Amino acid sequence: MFPADSVGLVSPQKIAFDTPLTLQSGRVLPRFDLMVETYGRLNAAKDNAVLVCHALSGHHHVAGYHSENDKQPGWWDNMVGPGKPVDTDRFFVVGVNNLGGCHGSTGPLSTNPETGGEYGADFPVVTVKDWVRSQAMLADYFGIGKWAAVIGGSMGGMQALQWAVDYPKRIAHALVIAAAPRLTAQNIAFNDVARQAIITDPDFHGGHYRRHGTLPRRGLRIARMMGHITYLAEAGLGQKFGRSMCHDTYQYNYDLEFQIESYLHHQGDKFAEQFDANTYLRMTKALDYFSPAEDFGDDLVAALKQAEAKFFVAGFSTDWRFAPQRSRALVKHLVKAGKSVQYIEIESVHGHDAFLMTDEPYIRAVRAFMKNVAGSPI
Amino acid sequence: MFPADSVGLVSPQKIAFDTPLTLQSGRVLPRFDLMVETYGRLNAAKDNAVLVCHALSGHHHVAGYHSENDKQPGWWDNMVGPGKPVDTDRFFVVGVNNLGGCHGSTGPLSTNPETGGEYGADFPVVTVKDWVRSQAMLADYFGIGKWAAVIGGSMGGMQALQWAVDYPKRIAHALVIAAAPRLTAQNIAFNDVARQAIITDPDFHGGHYRRHGTLPRRGLRIARMMGHITYLAEAGLGQKFGRSMCHDTYQYNYDLEFQIESYLHHQGDKFAEQFDANTYLRMTKALDYFSPAEDFGDDLVAALKQAEAKFFVAGFSTDWRFAPQRSRALVKHLVKAGKSVQYIEIESVHGHDAFLMTDEPYIRAVRAFMKNVAGSPI
Repeated sequence: MFPADSVGLVSPQKIAFDTPLTLQSGRVLPRFDLMVETYGRLNAAKDNAVLVCHALSGHHHVAGYHSENDKQPGWWDNMVGPGKPVDTDRFFVVGVNNLGGCHGSTGPLSTNPETGGEYGADFPVVTVKDWVRSQAMLADYFGIGKWAAVIGGSMGGMQALQWAVDYPKRIAHALVIAAAPRLTAQNIAFNDVARQAIITDPDFHGGHYRRHGTLPRRGLRIARMMGHITYLAEAGLGQKFGRSMCHDTYQYNYDLEFQIESYLHHQGDKFAEQFDANTYLRMTKALDYFSPAEDFGDDLVAALKQAEAKFFVAGFSTDWRFAPQRSRALVKHLVKAGKSVQYIEIESVHGHDAFLMTDEPYIRAVRAFMKNVAGSPI
Repeated sequence: MFPADSVGLVSPQKIAFDTPLTLQSGRVLPRFDLMVETYGRLNAAKDNAVLVCHALSGHHHVAGYHSENDKQPGWWDNMVGPGKPVDTDRFFVVGVNNLGGCHGSTGPLSTNPETGGEYGADFPVVTVKDWVRSQAMLADYFGIGKWAAVIGGSMGGMQALQWAVDYPKRIAHALVIAAAPRLTAQNIAFNDVARQAIITDPDFHGGHYRRHGTLPRRGLRIARMMGHITYLAEAGLGQKFGRSMCHDTYQYNYDLEFQIESYLHHQGDKFAEQFDANTYLRMTKALDYFSPAEDFGDDLVAALKQAEAKFFVAGFSTDWRFAPQRSRALVKHLVKAGKSVQYIEIESVHGHDAFLMTDEPYIRAVRAFMKNVAGSPI
């Protein structure tokens, strides 16, 4: 049995779009699929729909379980469910795997209709604008004229922001959590190192590793280990691992020695088997390019003036990947653009990953905002 | 011609120690060489000697030039020279390449007297305590009973601290700059990722890459690129690179796109050709192990009570590798131990690398402290 506040057993569905999609790069996808999961019911007025956008390594499986024996619920199960902040008793919640992903939506692992073979390295670069566009087509599919809310953390928050700018009439509320209106040089630098680790792995084969019957595990592992450090805060790492060792004495070799190393290796090894390297490259590149102000002469206020949504912005005290200063700067720009915005800065030791955690003030704030969403005509 | 405040043309010298050295690991070096450079003159009382300890990728070449056409002076030329903060008109300054290094001191590139071949991966793990011990033997060689000062930044500062604890009678002043009394879980984590990038490079060959006629360039490059991000501050990176691009438009591929990427690749490529991977592993491991409190039941105050040196501690506002909080914590422990300590926290955009830079308040503070050193009987 599943917990009472769980959406319970859920199944993904693959939705086919047989119209060509011209991407920001100019490349055209002749057709594409989006893998989605939905929770709750779309009401007759179709005004209770919430889109959940995922982060770098996320997917459509937001909440619930895929089988009776499934030990791990969806990645935002603490946030989405009956009576939870994104309340599936009130809302029709849609989780979607992004284009270019590796969890069922069209991406590098999909068949290229032009060749009949797998896309692999030939899958185009996609952008946040592309994702938002494909998600608008998804809304059309469901007959949703306007999302009651679009919500996401990190890269997911960036999609919520881009939604508000690109489709002002189609989004009533935007929840932008642990995100930033664009990457800094340091953010780009970390992405670059991750990509270089993958690309220079001899098993990468120019992105056609699967044709060579291999995977660039080494590179993906290094990318993930490094990424993981940037998702966590020094404070949290200190509390959880500190200088705890795997043995009673120094080993004086280069095997596992500190517990933090053991943790990182485990995370890296797991990821290297499960995540597609070509997808990783595309997700990080989309992050690098993300800049909703770019169509407005790099004037973020001008971009945000397009929006008609009400905003919820949240930052976490120890997040140094997208620090609360970045959220505060976004709030300032929103205010300058004359928009309604609610901001909360949450004390947490969980760093960037806090957006996935259950720090009580955070959960409470999302719950309160979503209550207002449920009460608002859209 | 060299600048008037330069030590000018300098030559390194290799000093041979033909007595066995038992390392902290229990391994024994039957003999070893230390590569050093000296500037200024040792006075008759031999009480004007200053030891400069290097950081992760540093060496003995602290100041001056190796040839008339040498464009690049030593790594701390802004700090060491006639009339400079570490004034070679007053002090006899010794720069030394650490054991395990790759710039002439005995290390993985040296001949293993037991086999007649290169040590390579067989060179033992060395620790900060080992370095300090070998540096004490170096002091003996010069007939220096007591250093007027031991000075270093980052890993160099850790050596200064260990000197004060291990040889209280042999060091009058310790300058501990941009350092910390031990690594955090986050520090260790970054070192681990760097080592894993090297070790999992197929060209690493268990550390015997030179026997295979190759170098683990990919791994070393990734390690250096990542390291570089952690040496610099987000603020400085933003000022220097921001989101500046290499082309006028997005390329929609995985080649160079942002200027920061170009910079990192250049740094990584250069380092991969010049620095020995086995040395890199040893330097980072010595950092991981560093803990002067460890012989004192992890009680840092008890350890520092051993010291008789006067301390100078400096931290830099945007240094997040060894943040000023770490320096402040060290100062607190020094005060608790009843030691004389002068602390300065310098506003800088240069992050951890600020210890190598010329932020004026920093240079002024070292100058003032070293003037007192010159005036003090030791």
